[in-house]
Amino acid sequence: MMKAGSIRIGVLGASGYTGADLIRLAAGHPNIEIAVLAASSHAGKPLAQVFPHLAFLDGPDLVKAEDADWSSCDVVFSGLPHGTAQDLIAELPEHLRIIDMSADFRLRDVETYKRWYGREHIAQHLLKNAVYGLSEHYAPQIADSRLVACPGCYPTAVLMALLPLAKSQLIDVRDLVIDAKSGTTGAGRSLKQNLLFAEAGEGLAPYSVGSHRHAPEMEQEIGLASGEKIILNFTPHLIPMSRGELVTCYVRRKDGVSAEDLRSALGQAYHDKPFIRIAAPGVLPATQMVRGSNYCLINVFEDRVPGRAIVIATIDNLVKGSAGQALQNFNLMCDLPETTGLKQLPLFP
Amino acid sequence: MMKAGSIRIGVLGASGYTGADLIRLAAGHPNIEIAVLAASSHAGKPLAQVFPHLAFLDGPDLVKAEDADWSSCDVVFSGLPHGTAQDLIAELPEHLRIIDMSADFRLRDVETYKRWYGREHIAQHLLKNAVYGLSEHYAPQIADSRLVACPGCYPTAVLMALLPLAKSQLIDVRDLVIDAKSGTTGAGRSLKQNLLFAEAGEGLAPYSVGSHRHAPEMEQEIGLASGEKIILNFTPHLIPMSRGELVTCYVRRKDGVSAEDLRSALGQAYHDKPFIRIAAPGVLPATQMVRGSNYCLINVFEDRVPGRAIVIATIDNLVKGSAGQALQNFNLMCDLPETTGLKQLPLFP
Amino acid sequence: MMKAGSIRIGVLGASGYTGADLIRLAAGHPNIEIAVLAASSHAGKPLAQVFPHLAFLDGPDLVKAEDADWSSCDVVFSGLPHGTAQDLIAELPEHLRIIDMSADFRLRDVETYKRWYGREHIAQHLLKNAVYGLSEHYAPQIADSRLVACPGCYPTAVLMALLPLAKSQLIDVRDLVIDAKSGTTGAGRSLKQNLLFAEAGEGLAPYSVGSHRHAPEMEQEIGLASGEKIILNFTPHLIPMSRGELVTCYVRRKDGVSAEDLRSALGQAYHDKPFIRIAAPGVLPATQMVRGSNYCLINVFEDRVPGRAIVIATIDNLVKGSAGQALQNFNLMCDLPETTGLKQLPLFP
Amino acid sequence: MMKAGSIRIGVLGASGYTGADLIRLAAGHPNIEIAVLAASSHAGKPLAQVFPHLAFLDGPDLVKAEDADWSSCDVVFSGLPHGTAQDLIAELPEHLRIIDMSADFRLRDVETYKRWYGREHIAQHLLKNAVYGLSEHYAPQIADSRLVACPGCYPTAVLMALLPLAKSQLIDVRDLVIDAKSGTTGAGRSLKQNLLFAEAGEGLAPYSVGSHRHAPEMEQEIGLASGEKIILNFTPHLIPMSRGELVTCYVRRKDGVSAEDLRSALGQAYHDKPFIRIAAPGVLPATQMVRGSNYCLINVFEDRVPGRAIVIATIDNLVKGSAGQALQNFNLMCDLPETTGLKQLPLFP
Repeated sequence: MMKAGSIRIGVLGASGYTGADLIRLAAGHPNIEIAVLAASSHAGKPLAQVFPHLAFLDGPDLVKAEDADWSSCDVVFSGLPHGTAQDLIAELPEHLRIIDMSADFRLRDVETYKRWYGREHIAQHLLKNAVYGLSEHYAPQIADSRLVACPGCYPTAVLMALLPLAKSQLIDVRDLVIDAKSGTTGAGRSLKQNLLFAEAGEGLAPYSVGSHRHAPEMEQEIGLASGEKIILNFTPHLIPMSRGELVTCYVRRKDGVSAEDLRSALGQAYHDKPFIRIAAPGVLPATQMVRGSNYCLINVFEDRVPGRAIVIATIDNLVKGSAGQALQNFNLMCDLPETTGLKQLPLFP
Repeated sequence: MMKAGSIRIGVLGASGYTGADLIRLAAGHPNIEIAVLAASSHAGKPLAQVFPHLAFLDGPDLVKAEDADWSSCDVVFSGLPHGTAQDLIAELPEHLRIIDMSADFRLRDVETYKRWYGREHIAQHLLKNAVYGLSEHYAPQIADSRLVACPGCYPTAVLMALLPLAKSQLIDVRDLVIDAKSGTTGAGRSLKQNLLFAEAGEGLAPYSVGSHRHAPEMEQEIGLASGEKIILNFTPHLIPMSRGELVTCYVRRKDGVSAEDLRSALGQAYHDKPFIRIAAPGVLPATQMVRGSNYCLINVFEDRVPGRAIVIATIDNLVKGSAGQALQNFNLMCDLPETTGLKQLPLFP
Repeated sequence: MMKAGSIRIGVLGASGYTGADLIRLAAGHPNIEIAVLAASSHAGKPLAQVFPHLAFLDGPDLVKAEDADWSSCDVVFSGLPHGTAQDLIAELPEHLRIIDMSADFRLRDVETYKRWYGREHIAQHLLKNAVYGLSEHYAPQIADSRLVACPGCYPTAVLMALLPLAKSQLIDVRDLVIDAKSGTTGAGRSLKQNLLFAEAGEGLAPYSVGSHRHAPEMEQEIGLASGEKIILNFTPHLIPMSRGELVTCYVRRKDGVSAEDLRSALGQAYHDKPFIRIAAPGVLPATQMVRGSNYCLINVFEDRVPGRAIVIATIDNLVKGSAGQALQNFNLMCDLPETTGLKQLPLFP
Repeated sequence: MMKAGSIRIGVLGASGYTGADLIRLAAGHPNIEIAVLAASSHAGKPLAQVFPHLAFLDGPDLVKAEDADWSSCDVVFSGLPHGTAQDLIAELPEHLRIIDMSADFRLRDVETYKRWYGREHIAQHLLKNAVYGLSEHYAPQIADSRLVACPGCYPTAVLMALLPLAKSQLIDVRDLVIDAKSGTTGAGRSLKQNLLFAEAGEGLAPYSVGSHRHAPEMEQEIGLASGEKIILNFTPHLIPMSRGELVTCYVRRKDGVSAEDLRSALGQAYHDKPFIRIAAPGVLPATQMVRGSNYCLINVFEDRVPGRAIVIATIDNLVKGSAGQALQNFNLMCDLPETTGLKQLPLFP
């Protein structure tokens, strides 16, 4: 386990899906040593008992967050749910750098946070210096930060697709319809009836229509990029698959802008970004093409409706949408090559 | 098999999924006797060999279409693909009434047909008197027709959701974004790589973006209802489930029209239609709620974007989207109660 | 809802999967009127809130079991879990006939019950006169009984396959290996981690190896049929599908008995039983062939190992394995044709 | 792509699932350079067109096998189907070492080959020196061989579970019942109706009962290990999942041997084998625990039937059951650490 020159990490919320995927990826990272795994409800258990697929890994047993020996760690990843995340992160020793995968440090505006998450933000001093961890768009800031707030899975896919277009004023950001589709792990490992195999299988359901918490996050970033305050349509659907996410973005092009212009702009924005790929012309992104990997695949299509276009992006919600991007941010923070430990190709079929 | 006062039917294309579902439903219909099952590539086989789940039915063996004894039949259902459908239907004896589930007699304009389906229409004399078989909207015409062209599965769901709104001028029909999702049976029983379990499973893919053949059918009907010539966005996605279809329609309300007004208009349009239900306020339609049944479930939601709304409809693509609606049209044509043989509740889980 | 000459039924445990499937089937039964739906944890709610797919049914709201007006009922079906079932059934008024789908009245021996279910049986006076509701094997007793204990889903499939062979001494009942596979609804609607889509999907797991509670039930019945006290191997596996069950039974033939003899014996045993079918020679039963129906499909295969044979049976665990067989027993008890309300063909795909 | 000190490989049959998984794994192997990808039916295409998930890899375009420049290669992997495999392998230049994933060089006896595969073996001169590539059991021979015949996926799982027990005479090898379950990729990428999502999904079917071609392979190896000529029962089932395989082996213990003895024997046999793990006592192997990895997880359970036991093993059929084991053999042949490039943890969910 001990790797030469390794950086010691801890994981908060090690018993959730994002925690597990972080551990899976970290185990294959040449510069990481897993020192602490915290999961309060499972403290004392070996990891294998909580995640049998990680039995092949020789990692530490789970501990309560408050019992963790943080002195031995350099970086902490948090896979805790929002609320709990800020409570625990606020208590972490100052020497730790923190990569949070919850929603707690994503929204700049505490009022917006309160409105969407239903509680006061108790760690505003940390929030002030937190960086929104959309790796390809905030790399320099991430490299220098102590606390990185990794984007939600949906915002990751949507912003990769739309941010360059908003920034370069190629689309009308006040007319955005985003129809999103996700596998069930997007909802975490919680025991909810609609997540049972018998209920989610062989079926398809929209959810949180007009009320999904990832909307303000996208509005914040697209607003910043375009310089306009916006409200967008975001409508997610639960798909009978475990992993994977695809967003179909219906956009209105600015006058004189073609669908091909949008595609070019994306190509230019990401030409040196190893994980973001514009698919070949006409190739339709599908979640199967990125499953298990840190890649994001994007393409643009002509709409039959004059003046419109369709931008489609797909990621693995647990990797580029969460643990993979977290690790990519870790690489940026530790001045390692951005792709270290993240080069696995997608698993298909 | 012989039922008192029964009407004798034949099925063309009995070896496809729509044919099979028609047979399944017809077997439970109190006024139907299945006299002919035609499936040229499987002629001579018992039905059980082509569809083992129909082994419990004591039906006739499969024959070639040209060998069928149509004299014994009153009504023919066709589950053939477009093209083949018109070729065979054009040859059928005049005493037969015909319920076609292909696309061949749906489009009023033969040029549009040619553009989208790539061939001349060779049965324009039949097309002239064909009725578009959207049961709830064309019941009187269906009752009197000789040839009914059942709508495509997607148009069925979309038109149920939007036709009353277009007709009553409550939405701007020039600004329609329709994000559609379907199970794999929508593509029929053809042996295509993307329909293999290993390829379609655990994943999600858009397809036919900007080019799906159901678009002109919707444009024709919404155009007729609204009095405007329209082009709409229609973007289908292949979902890892066998049956079921859900359409998420993003619409712009006319000035002064609320989302609740849309919901009321739908409620009024369908208040006496047994198979079309407006879900309770806030209830999100899901394919699981209608699987295996002839029901269509619709609801309307406020969009966060000012002036917009979201209309969601779901059906079983093989039942209300095909064989069930065909049988409903049969009931209308034969002056039977509309729900005869179609009252099965959805199969869940 | 009111049907001429109808029998009024109540359902205990209406919020579980077996309860829901019972309601679905009962709604299509021409002689049943659903008078009471009890589900204590959901009392006061309309059925549609607990099972949206039943929203199309105009049934009564859910009540607490203790608030139910049993005076209006003739027959009660119970979909409650074991333990709770006997507690509530013991309190039911005497005029009611009872069809129980739990395990509480299946085992003749109260000590065996205690050992496997971990509690004393508190309704032994009822147990004494209960009939094991394997419809095809105990029809006369079922017809006359007040209380029918419907078999477990696994025992239904296994006993349909093996009981005639055990009875006629064609196989060695001391050498039975039964490898069983079931969809996730076999475990009910309980919120367990291993039943989540993300955990059960795209995978396969054995469970309760050597300890499944359906084993003593099979041993009791095969023991009775063969006249030998037996212990059998029963190893169930959880399959990523919602419905369906298949049992692969590895048997040793008695000297001089061929696999074809086994097949003939089954054919003879069930030649007049409408729901039990011996598949054509060489046809492999699959759950898809019976999904959603009350059919049981069986076949026998030569084993390459000398002296052995393989008997395979498949049912829908929620229909013939539970609610369907319950309704079949209802028909027997009420002197109705055995297939009344149960003739739906399987839903495929 | 060019790696220091790398070994250049070619892949025959690059357009099948085993070929694709070999490429996926080879791309992450530090000592491999992919020089040739041959797939005759797709010659001239970029790999991304045949496998979009491999678009992120900068590999060579596909060529016809006969056009491949083998002079640049050191080792060839073949993912071709049997028959075609031997035809092409027989023509390969002598300097190449060959790792074949087909059945062509697995059976020692050409008569057995002919009986099960229906054709003469035309490369018996190669067969003579071929080594059966069950990595953990034939490592020294594999290291020295020119041609390695990787075992079938089922034999891999079964032999890992049973070979040590047969070798040490702990079980009666004449009484073996093996109930096997596999995902659909086990059948390759061929366009067969029963592999369509709509047919394989939500269902479960036994297949090739008494006639599966992996049986003679297991009989050969268990026969060699035990010194007895055997016939075993092997009954495979098609499960609605893409990857993964689980075998439930019902065995009779020799007198005086306990289930725990079997477990110990397996623990001892594999104590220094990194990819074979005996699960903790009572832990039930499930395919989800090894998906996407080269691990094999085994456990032994007491049977309730006296004298018997149940041995369960699970692997990913495309990794340890095919491409992963092939790469493990490559490591052995090239004197690299056995786990090089194969340490990825399972992908769960």
